[in-house]
Amino acid sequence: MPGRNLRARMAAALAIAVASSGGSSFAEEGLWTFDAFPSEAVRQSYGVDVDKPFLDRLRLGSGRLSSGCSAGFVSAEGLIQTNHHCVLDCIQQLTPSGVDPLVTPVLAPKLEDEQSCPGLTMDVLQEITDVTDEMAAATNGKEGEAFGSARDAARDAIEERCLAGEADRVCEVVSLYQGGQYKLYRYRTFDDLRMVLGVEGDVGSFGGDPDNFNFPRYALDVAFLRAWHDDRPVATPDHFRWRSDPIEEGELLFVAGSPGETSRLWTVQRIAFVRDQTAPFWLTLWAELRGRLTVFATQGPEESRIASQALYDVENWFKGWLGERMAIVPPEVMADLAAREKELRRRIDADPKLAAATKGAFEALEQIEAEHSRTFYPFRLVEDGMWGNSDALDYGRTLLRAAEDAGRDDKGEWRAEPLEVDAWVTDEDRVEPRLDELRLGFWLSKVREYLTTDDPLVRRILGDESPEGLAARVVKDTKLGDAAMRRKLVDGGARAVMESDDPMLVFLRGFDSEARALDEHYAKVIVAGREREYGRIARARFALDGDRVYPDATGTPRVSYGTAAGWTEPSGRVVPYATRFEGLSRRATGAIPYKLAPLWEKALPSLDPKVILNVATTNDTVGGNSGSPVLDREGRVVGAMFDGNFASLGGTYFFDPEQNRSVIVAATAVEEALLRVYRLERIVAELHK
Amino acid sequence: MPGRNLRARMAAALAIAVASSGGSSFAEEGLWTFDAFPSEAVRQSYGVDVDKPFLDRLRLGSGRLSSGCSAGFVSAEGLIQTNHHCVLDCIQQLTPSGVDPLVTPVLAPKLEDEQSCPGLTMDVLQEITDVTDEMAAATNGKEGEAFGSARDAARDAIEERCLAGEADRVCEVVSLYQGGQYKLYRYRTFDDLRMVLGVEGDVGSFGGDPDNFNFPRYALDVAFLRAWHDDRPVATPDHFRWRSDPIEEGELLFVAGSPGETSRLWTVQRIAFVRDQTAPFWLTLWAELRGRLTVFATQGPEESRIASQALYDVENWFKGWLGERMAIVPPEVMADLAAREKELRRRIDADPKLAAATKGAFEALEQIEAEHSRTFYPFRLVEDGMWGNSDALDYGRTLLRAAEDAGRDDKGEWRAEPLEVDAWVTDEDRVEPRLDELRLGFWLSKVREYLTTDDPLVRRILGDESPEGLAARVVKDTKLGDAAMRRKLVDGGARAVMESDDPMLVFLRGFDSEARALDEHYAKVIVAGREREYGRIARARFALDGDRVYPDATGTPRVSYGTAAGWTEPSGRVVPYATRFEGLSRRATGAIPYKLAPLWEKALPSLDPKVILNVATTNDTVGGNSGSPVLDREGRVVGAMFDGNFASLGGTYFFDPEQNRSVIVAATAVEEALLRVYRLERIVAELHK
Repeated sequence: MPGRNLRARMAAALAIAVASSGGSSFAEEGLWTFDAFPSEAVRQSYGVDVDKPFLDRLRLGSGRLSSGCSAGFVSAEGLIQTNHHCVLDCIQQLTPSGVDPLVTPVLAPKLEDEQSCPGLTMDVLQEITDVTDEMAAATNGKEGEAFGSARDAARDAIEERCLAGEADRVCEVVSLYQGGQYKLYRYRTFDDLRMVLGVEGDVGSFGGDPDNFNFPRYALDVAFLRAWHDDRPVATPDHFRWRSDPIEEGELLFVAGSPGETSRLWTVQRIAFVRDQTAPFWLTLWAELRGRLTVFATQGPEESRIASQALYDVENWFKGWLGERMAIVPPEVMADLAAREKELRRRIDADPKLAAATKGAFEALEQIEAEHSRTFYPFRLVEDGMWGNSDALDYGRTLLRAAEDAGRDDKGEWRAEPLEVDAWVTDEDRVEPRLDELRLGFWLSKVREYLTTDDPLVRRILGDESPEGLAARVVKDTKLGDAAMRRKLVDGGARAVMESDDPMLVFLRGFDSEARALDEHYAKVIVAGREREYGRIARARFALDGDRVYPDATGTPRVSYGTAAGWTEPSGRVVPYATRFEGLSRRATGAIPYKLAPLWEKALPSLDPKVILNVATTNDTVGGNSGSPVLDREGRVVGAMFDGNFASLGGTYFFDPEQNRSVIVAATAVEEALLRVYRLERIVAELHK
Repeated sequence: MPGRNLRARMAAALAIAVASSGGSSFAEEGLWTFDAFPSEAVRQSYGVDVDKPFLDRLRLGSGRLSSGCSAGFVSAEGLIQTNHHCVLDCIQQLTPSGVDPLVTPVLAPKLEDEQSCPGLTMDVLQEITDVTDEMAAATNGKEGEAFGSARDAARDAIEERCLAGEADRVCEVVSLYQGGQYKLYRYRTFDDLRMVLGVEGDVGSFGGDPDNFNFPRYALDVAFLRAWHDDRPVATPDHFRWRSDPIEEGELLFVAGSPGETSRLWTVQRIAFVRDQTAPFWLTLWAELRGRLTVFATQGPEESRIASQALYDVENWFKGWLGERMAIVPPEVMADLAAREKELRRRIDADPKLAAATKGAFEALEQIEAEHSRTFYPFRLVEDGMWGNSDALDYGRTLLRAAEDAGRDDKGEWRAEPLEVDAWVTDEDRVEPRLDELRLGFWLSKVREYLTTDDPLVRRILGDESPEGLAARVVKDTKLGDAAMRRKLVDGGARAVMESDDPMLVFLRGFDSEARALDEHYAKVIVAGREREYGRIARARFALDGDRVYPDATGTPRVSYGTAAGWTEPSGRVVPYATRFEGLSRRATGAIPYKLAPLWEKALPSLDPKVILNVATTNDTVGGNSGSPVLDREGRVVGAMFDGNFASLGGTYFFDPEQNRSVIVAATAVEEALLRVYRLERIVAELHK
């Protein structure tokens, strides 16, 4: 799932206030916490006993990568399996200049060849403690801002106590069921991860955009890292054993990872708004930007390099929105969601105490969504969505707001003390002016298109210029792409920023107060309003069902269970549960994106054509699960989850057991590749130790 | 309304089977036929007597252009007023090589300078005769194919009789209310139209895409033609007098023209399908193609020229779909449409005879729309939407199908007799291979994206090639862009086409039988099914309401009435009813598309700033109405209709009296321009004769 982490980040940005619980009666639905797994249901369906020791092994063997993915230990010497697309940044950093990571792998023939991935870490969940009572005691009787402050103070105290000064520890108080439950999650952090094998892009992402979120699939989306400490591999007794036997159709499988975000208890009105407005808006925007980037990239190798990451992101976002939207378009799906909402309201109303506690919540949400609808376009266009279209604009906007926040001194002069900004603002980074110009010109043209030329805010933004002309001018002449200039502005404080004649800053100063007002309205009216009302509903739901239902995903460790299984498309087409090397041979026509990396072109004819490569499973997973170890009933690793099929994109809103499939790269293919393509006998030996 | 005719054509392609009548209680709604105008309602509301002589003058003064627009006579010597965008083709043909029609007008200082527009004609409605009985007699008791054949034979006989061998006559049997009524429309054709004034593109389309379907508007979208015959101007006693006094806010206005197509009695299910599937599908496709064309066009002046018409079309389609979709997104709109449908069914069910005649019709439509939904993507992608993406492909497909239809001889050999094809296939025309390659590569990439790489039809189409690679190959090597080669193939008959190794023909032969099967399924199951069922409903409706309701637009002459009026946006913004030259001066910043042509840059400062330029009116108009004369209560022409505001795009489905506005170019501005910009005193004198 190339960029599932990106999808997750985007979903997070759009779906900040999420409903708390999304239980249902579907057999294999569920993003279960490690301390509330439905073992009885699994025992009844599969005759398998998922006891605490088994769950502990899943928990201690799996982890959360700082890249937004999941991963698992597969040897006692700190060997980690994850996805290729989860460590793309590291692969690009470790690939020597002049070498193309699409066709050349990063691999370490010997242990001492393993190189560190800068900034990459993995957290492994050590302990879960219920702190609901302590949190409740601290916030009892408090409301509004006092409630928020007390809650934050209690959380900070619990986390501080948990940390106990340990360097390799991470502690988080996690709010589940939207405040229905608070749990302290204590992790052990591994902060020196070294690259053992990062496969070639033309293998890890084989099939590119057409195959993304599709199955049958033929990608070896795998990477191996190793946790080191003090220049030695870390001992990891809690690891998964490697299974060389192929995955069998119908066999029970567990996925242990950290799914990012789901929205399974949004009101029907809010989901209909996504169907009718949010999704079509982003889809048409990404489609047009994709078109611009596609032709830009064909102009030459330098243009291709400049546009590649942006194009990849946009294609991934587009397909993600397309799948989410397609899932909620069928009238019967909306009718089903409406029936669930009605049933929940009936159950709440049947309990006088719960009815009183949630009185007016649904009605308030209706008002909030109407207000959201009213301000959707200006907020998305001028504030929210304008970020990310130009690095120089992002720098400028961040500096400008830091300056505004610093404010003026007693004499009414802008302050000259150095600004407080995050490190990324002053770090060295490569800015591509041509990409900035293309994206900013595009974005400003959409601002004018949707809000119209006659809108006063559009007039403030564009003045007498065309969108493309304005973008070209400010991008060409701005100095904000230079880290030294940014540091100079930070050091010069608010005064330097507010008095700068840098054209990007001049441009932004012309309308930033309006943009910030839109942001503040969104945060205070829309987001805060949703949190308050969804929270009331979620607590009622938790009172009704407790943890018999799972909480919505929140980027914390979960387990799902399912089976290896194909499916039947609504068109009647039957999709088998697995693909094999023979299928990869047929698909590798040489036409991009079906072009194999050279090592594979050479090796593939000699590989066993029957070896299973990718497998579809019924496990309930979403963005963030990429790289999750997939375990059999004995807890042995049989693959790594890396994508879902197209229907899985509907998983944001509901789980469809007939159509929703996770997609995994099978250990069988990985082992074959390690031995016969990459000649990493030492790793295969380690897996079998 | 740049390209309203294109919009109409597109709507027509997508909306072949239209419901028959869309009456309502809204005050100024209605696309009325000349023989069933609601004069009593106008008398009651405005105290104006719209009698038969008045309606006859409107009918005989207005006409339908072969470019898909409307027009009106404005002098006794054949002078015609229409829109600039209605005669773009002619302007481009009459503009000398090396001259840019964006900045240079086509104008005839003297009568003898007026040049013919090749192929352009105008039809003026002379007589309407009710032939319902004759048609009914011919088809009485017949069903299925026999019904269709009898209906066609009766129609042909009536039209033949009407033509009576007259060269300047056009006769059409028009089906109104979906066969509830048949009328014979007899027209007089004017077939030598000469250009008097075609304004510069930077004036006629001032404001470009951002201002298209928007108001306030500042475009002089006007052109003057003259009808000639035997090398002399035609005498046109039935013309509109010119009014120099400005349009007053609130005054009654009539629009006489030929609106293209409306869909105001589609079932709610079908409109919801447009909202959920059809519109988002086309919107995302046009958005991406627009992005590709936009960047392609920035590569240089030659690329800009190559892409300009395609980009214009795509932007116009995009905005059209956007407006249509936005109109039907609000839940309250869909609820209103559902309530109307329910009320119609209630009234039908209350009459046993009508209930029996329409029994099962709504249920059958439900099944047909479900089937349409099932086959929507393959049909649109592989058949319907693939047309128009490559001139060479369109030629090839047309030749191939003519060859298949010619068939084999007794020996099983493809026939060698010359093929029967329309003239456009063998006419000289300029093909742009780079544009063909861009669009075909784009289209094939969408075929794969939506149907997926694993679809058997996609595999037949692409083989082992990438969409872009295949497009580049067949476009580069095909000879079908050469008219001589096409004539050679036509002359060589089916045998030449089927045995040709032209790569485009080889490519098309690989999947054309599947594409034709999709087309046939659409025609026989979807379109025919809709015609049958909507026809039954429409006849019941006609039985209930007769011609107290107006029939849906069908590209035939209609009258609408309304008033000059601004409106209040849902946001609260008040939009005045008129714009003036002073507004044009402010808007003409010089940044494209707000750049004026040189003559105007020079003249504008000396024009009276208070002269009214464009006016919004409450008249009910749709695509096809472009160029319609706008008349005051005395039948004097005060402008030409050329666009609608954004809300007017919802006019396909319903008329919203509060938001829907037509946009006209005012006679006041036109007269000022004729005198002081174009120095056409002879025309002004003629207007005032």
